[in-house]
Formats: sequence, structure tokens, C-alpha cells
Amino acid sequence: METVYEVKGMTCGHCVGSVTQEITALPGVQNVAVVLETGKVTVTSETPLTEDAVREAVDEAGYELVGTSE
Amino acid sequence: METVYEVKGMTCGHCVGSVTQEITALPGVQNVAVVLETGKVTVTSETPLTEDAVREAVDEAGYELVGTSE
Repeated sequence: METVYEVKGMTCGHCVGSVTQEITALPGVQNVAVVLETGKVTVTSETPLTEDAVREAVDEAGYELVGTSE
Repeated sequence: METVYEVKGMTCGHCVGSVTQEITALPGVQNVAVVLETGKVTVTSETPLTEDAVREAVDEAGYELVGTSE
């Protein structure tokens, strides 16, 4: 399943890397695709993720989860 | 000796880290201090550095050396 999140505060490729790394480390996550310009983060996972888990991962990377986008 | 350079394109702490790391790796460099907001990079070194060497390090990090600032 695929969920699109919106993340605030990413400004460069390093930020994208940090967010990708933290979310990828969540159990069940298969792929993470970030579009820097829009802050949209598309997460593909085997099982549903809780928004809290994704929020914590984004927070860990140093950014803010605004919510789901689609 | 201390030289202040101006670097273009840094947008976040990760960028600062990359530039700091690359310039620190140059021979003779003792300290690197970056102010993200202004792009000013103060380099302390035992011996004079060529601007070409610093430009190459900044380029390696993915940014652009505008020139010396002071």
C-alpha cells in the first residue's frame, strides 16, 4: 500500500536523505520517494503504518509531518 | 591565519556539515566556522591556502565558492 505524507522544512538533498533514511527504517516499509519541491513523501509499505510512527520518524530526522496528503 | 570565504547555495545544517567536512580535510586547516545565514565560511589554517584548493573542496561538497569576503 502507498500513502502520501506532507513534510515541512526540507530544503536540500541532505534533508531528503535524512527523511528517507528514518522512514525507511520503520518496520514494513518497502520504498520511500520524496519530492523536495512539494514536501510530498510517498511511502510504500507491506502493512499500514500509523501516522504516529511516521511522525516520529520525520521528527527524528529533524522535520515536521503536516499530515497525509492523499 | 584566518580567511573568510563566501559560499553560495547552503540551505541547512546538513549543507554546513558537508562544506565544513570538505574544507577541514584540506592540509593545514585547523578550524572551519560556517554561518549558514550569510554563507560566510571562516577558515583557520597553519599555512596559506590557495583559493583554488578551497574552491575545489566547496565544489566537492556541492556548493559554489563566490570568493574571499574579507
